[in-house]
Amino acid sequence: MKKKNVYLENKPLHKAREKWNKALHECGFLGRKHTETIAVDNSLGRRTAAPVFARRSAPSYNAAAMDGIAVHFLDLASASEASPLLLNSDQFIQVNTGNAIPENYNAVVMIEDVHLLDDGRAEVTSPATPWQHIRTIGEDIVATELIIPEGHTIRPIDQGAMLATGVINIEVTRPPRVTVIPTGSELIQPVEEPAPGQIIEFNTRILGGYLQEWGADVSRSLPVEDKPEELKNALLAAVEHNDLVVINAGASAGTKDFSSTVLSELGTVVVHGVAIKPGKPVMLGLIGNTPVIGLPGYPVSALLTMRLFVHEMINAFLGLRPPEPEYIAATISRPVHSNMGVDQMIRVSLGKVGNKLMATPSGKGAGAVMSYVRADGILTLPTGSEGVGSGEEVQIELLRTPQEIDSTLVCIGSHDNSLDLIANHLHSRGDMIRISSAHVGSMGGIMAIRRGEAHFGGCHLLDEKTGEYNISFIRKYLKNRPLQLINLCYREQGLIVAKGNPKNISSFTDIRDNELLFINRQAGAGTRLLTDKVLKEQNIETTAINGYEREEYTHMNVAVAVAKGSVDCGMGIRAAAAALNLDFVPIAEERYDLIIPEEFIEDEKIAAMLDLIRNDEDFHKNVLRLGGYNLCDCGKTIYSQ
Amino acid sequence: MKKKNVYLENKPLHKAREKWNKALHECGFLGRKHTETIAVDNSLGRRTAAPVFARRSAPSYNAAAMDGIAVHFLDLASASEASPLLLNSDQFIQVNTGNAIPENYNAVVMIEDVHLLDDGRAEVTSPATPWQHIRTIGEDIVATELIIPEGHTIRPIDQGAMLATGVINIEVTRPPRVTVIPTGSELIQPVEEPAPGQIIEFNTRILGGYLQEWGADVSRSLPVEDKPEELKNALLAAVEHNDLVVINAGASAGTKDFSSTVLSELGTVVVHGVAIKPGKPVMLGLIGNTPVIGLPGYPVSALLTMRLFVHEMINAFLGLRPPEPEYIAATISRPVHSNMGVDQMIRVSLGKVGNKLMATPSGKGAGAVMSYVRADGILTLPTGSEGVGSGEEVQIELLRTPQEIDSTLVCIGSHDNSLDLIANHLHSRGDMIRISSAHVGSMGGIMAIRRGEAHFGGCHLLDEKTGEYNISFIRKYLKNRPLQLINLCYREQGLIVAKGNPKNISSFTDIRDNELLFINRQAGAGTRLLTDKVLKEQNIETTAINGYEREEYTHMNVAVAVAKGSVDCGMGIRAAAAALNLDFVPIAEERYDLIIPEEFIEDEKIAAMLDLIRNDEDFHKNVLRLGGYNLCDCGKTIYSQ
Repeated sequence: MKKKNVYLENKPLHKAREKWNKALHECGFLGRKHTETIAVDNSLGRRTAAPVFARRSAPSYNAAAMDGIAVHFLDLASASEASPLLLNSDQFIQVNTGNAIPENYNAVVMIEDVHLLDDGRAEVTSPATPWQHIRTIGEDIVATELIIPEGHTIRPIDQGAMLATGVINIEVTRPPRVTVIPTGSELIQPVEEPAPGQIIEFNTRILGGYLQEWGADVSRSLPVEDKPEELKNALLAAVEHNDLVVINAGASAGTKDFSSTVLSELGTVVVHGVAIKPGKPVMLGLIGNTPVIGLPGYPVSALLTMRLFVHEMINAFLGLRPPEPEYIAATISRPVHSNMGVDQMIRVSLGKVGNKLMATPSGKGAGAVMSYVRADGILTLPTGSEGVGSGEEVQIELLRTPQEIDSTLVCIGSHDNSLDLIANHLHSRGDMIRISSAHVGSMGGIMAIRRGEAHFGGCHLLDEKTGEYNISFIRKYLKNRPLQLINLCYREQGLIVAKGNPKNISSFTDIRDNELLFINRQAGAGTRLLTDKVLKEQNIETTAINGYEREEYTHMNVAVAVAKGSVDCGMGIRAAAAALNLDFVPIAEERYDLIIPEEFIEDEKIAAMLDLIRNDEDFHKNVLRLGGYNLCDCGKTIYSQ
Repeated sequence: MKKKNVYLENKPLHKAREKWNKALHECGFLGRKHTETIAVDNSLGRRTAAPVFARRSAPSYNAAAMDGIAVHFLDLASASEASPLLLNSDQFIQVNTGNAIPENYNAVVMIEDVHLLDDGRAEVTSPATPWQHIRTIGEDIVATELIIPEGHTIRPIDQGAMLATGVINIEVTRPPRVTVIPTGSELIQPVEEPAPGQIIEFNTRILGGYLQEWGADVSRSLPVEDKPEELKNALLAAVEHNDLVVINAGASAGTKDFSSTVLSELGTVVVHGVAIKPGKPVMLGLIGNTPVIGLPGYPVSALLTMRLFVHEMINAFLGLRPPEPEYIAATISRPVHSNMGVDQMIRVSLGKVGNKLMATPSGKGAGAVMSYVRADGILTLPTGSEGVGSGEEVQIELLRTPQEIDSTLVCIGSHDNSLDLIANHLHSRGDMIRISSAHVGSMGGIMAIRRGEAHFGGCHLLDEKTGEYNISFIRKYLKNRPLQLINLCYREQGLIVAKGNPKNISSFTDIRDNELLFINRQAGAGTRLLTDKVLKEQNIETTAINGYEREEYTHMNVAVAVAKGSVDCGMGIRAAAAALNLDFVPIAEERYDLIIPEEFIEDEKIAAMLDLIRNDEDFHKNVLRLGGYNLCDCGKTIYSQ
């Protein structure tokens, strides 16, 4: 295996688009009307490809608009209250609403204004005007008149109008048939349990879902294994039946490689490699006259690349104008460096913290689906941009409605599962408040609050010297900032041990005495501080703990080490143990507080949250059900400045 | 048949709502969570009924984020460009993106930065940081963490996140199952040709379509004949399988009557008769615990009533907040009188003519489906309102987007089919300009322009004295108003005759000489003026025309009289003949112009229209294809002031 050739071009985005667009016109995907004839009954939400004219007039006959009697208006000329008129039975005829008006009659008198006599005559006390209470033929619409123009999206009322005027079938724009082919031998179906190295095939669900929302008629294929022959067969079958084929390369570069080889054998590769990030390895080609697009393997890269190239294609296929994403102006909270020569798409979270709408780049990798779930918008830095400095105003393409952004509380700091419950309760109660939360650790939260980027943050920082939580850090890093420190909970930290606790561990003493294998957290971590405090209190030398010097960087990696059996235990939170179905031995209780700047205490969203944590019994019940929580001080102000 | 009893209540709307709401809570339609468990794969667009937590961490193992080699970062501590480091084959392992990182390795070096030597060793030129290019377990999300809260509408990315974290099924709100039962023996299916007195069953398509858009799971029944037993059976079957049953009474009052009788036999009538217009006869009841709603028969009444009562019910069933219609402020163009004691819903058209957004009540009957197709909004006058004076500001509930309203040209005046083609071309060309057109006759158009309600109007008014069209009327009714009179077309008026012209009519002389039966238009109609002019020119006495004194009021009623054979011919436009598949003998050409106030000539929508009629060959071709048109002056300014 040699250092790999860089086999990709790095075509500037606008040039790639230009070349691709030309190919799409040549193959007939674009520049042509794609229509089909469908029944009006099935046309809701579809778009007319031709004007629709009335085939019949409505009403199609002169119809009684009221229950009453049909008369000739001249016969009633002399009727009045003072001298009621008597009509003979051949001068009128009873009609119900909707009945046809017989010839020689041209007005209807409402039944309430008629006395029908036993001898068959009718008494009327006022004259009639011609055609009163009659819906005349064509009154609503005359046959041959326009009902709806071309390019109109059909509403239920339009369906009614068409059917009423004798239009049964109409010509509408046809959605493109698109199939998404996942490739990669490592892919398994969601119902299966993944072994290490196996990946659940969820990308085509994401890609297919957006394609569907954009108006395509989508199908998903089963995963194609990493064998050129299989991909060939899959592609040849797909281009038979579709207007567009999307290949989602597996996560390995090797797979992508042979996708392009296969495509060049079966057809033409128009573009392979575009100067965008993420999405560089995108492949645009044709098999026969069917466009084939190869997307990168990582879900977020695949999605962003598909948005860039395919959304527009579908719109144009449907004869719609290019998609018009909604933009919002925001202030960027930290510098974004340009990546010279590429168009960059950066996920951001948005929050109106104070008066300014702040945009914070999420900075997560392209594999992080949750980062896109949580993202509020996308910042595009075009090639040639010099980057954006902190505090600059930028235009963000919205992934949510402005209303959702307005009702968002920005929470940055340490994560705790009870925060999730707050988020859920606030959202599902009438308030519909959304919590946008970034898990960057306690210290990261303090810094975000200092920069004015967060409404609040969760914090559990132990001061080794005082044994007190959070306050000394606030005094140091947030001095002069009026704020309240409000307790959310006490939570257990403890020893994560194998399922069933086979080594019978109940304390650090057990670890020392039985010479068990421990795994530690890195220096500076809150959990490491807690471990040291406990050891000191129990007069246990750190050198007496086997593995004290071996460091892991996250709660989860500690749990993984235990799950694999490579260590006997490690210190962490209960949730990490629960996540991997391990057991947990509580060792210490730590205080977990919320830091809320004073200026937000009266904000109605914060007020709703405080009301929730102080008074909502359902919320308390749900937190306690998680296990390991103590809510004795929940909602109490611990400290303020 | 006696004068009918007024069997309906006239309950104030708020009281009816209150009583109904109470019944809906008692029967369990409201005040209860309606949920179902579905596969995540089928959950796009659905709303979560419970928070969704990650079942598995993502990634679920430590995974290579790049193609390269997995190493232990400490082994590379001393590597540098100056002194490359050689790793033995047991110190590294090749990995592709997505591969699991084996135990004892904790960093990945990108393949581009590695030299793999033939002896199996690898040369590296820089140190590594712990966990570089590795997506650690739970980096994206840790099992037990919240993925999406309750009450969230599921997007494709959410589906991906759920599947990625082992969530296969979720609890979502269940849409109410609603069935719509049309009643009335006069109803036929759209594919059938209606005889007089028969009505095409399109109401349930309209009602069902909106129910579907509001989020219900809708079915439509076949029409039930006007027999109590049949309605009973239909209702009993419907309440078995549905959460809500909607009966759309036939157009006759008799039908509605027995609906309420049947309902009271099978269950309870909660409300029958509400003080609203339209919609008074609405019936709200229960069979067992299933709500049953009887709507009035006229399509627009039925729809407006359903909007009023059912939209909110469906929202509440789904656990959503009440629907929030979009309102816009507009100036009412003509007075609307209050209807004491009822809540009135009035269809209006909206147009930004000049600076003001004007709202013009459409004033069409409840049977007029096209009036709702054309309506832009709804004005609600609550009971107790004293009406609205011309020029007052009102709030209009929008039936279109504000963008659509902005791009609307308001055309009021005489109708011509070529205007429909203008509307269609403008809409389907890139411009997406909409024409809102009201067919009120030439004089009505002049008056609308005088009041500043229209951008332009079609006009074909013959001055008997001068033989000239339109100009003298403009001088009289629009004096001092700068405007341009621009020709659209010359069009034929002529004799509408039976199919095949069996009486061989070619002129008025034939009518006189062969003593044929003619039918005239009413005094003052443009066509009557034209008839008189032609008779005078040909020196034919009006008394010599048999039927000259018999008047009809519309082109279409003249055509109907011919179609029925009750007369031999009448004067009218070609379209009226075409609409009823009759023949047409051209007699005279009349000029059809557009009146455009000077201040709108530069408006970009008007400019686009003038460009269209002057230069678009497709448009000309389509107009000429209609037959009877002469476009020699199309787009020419005939007169300006």
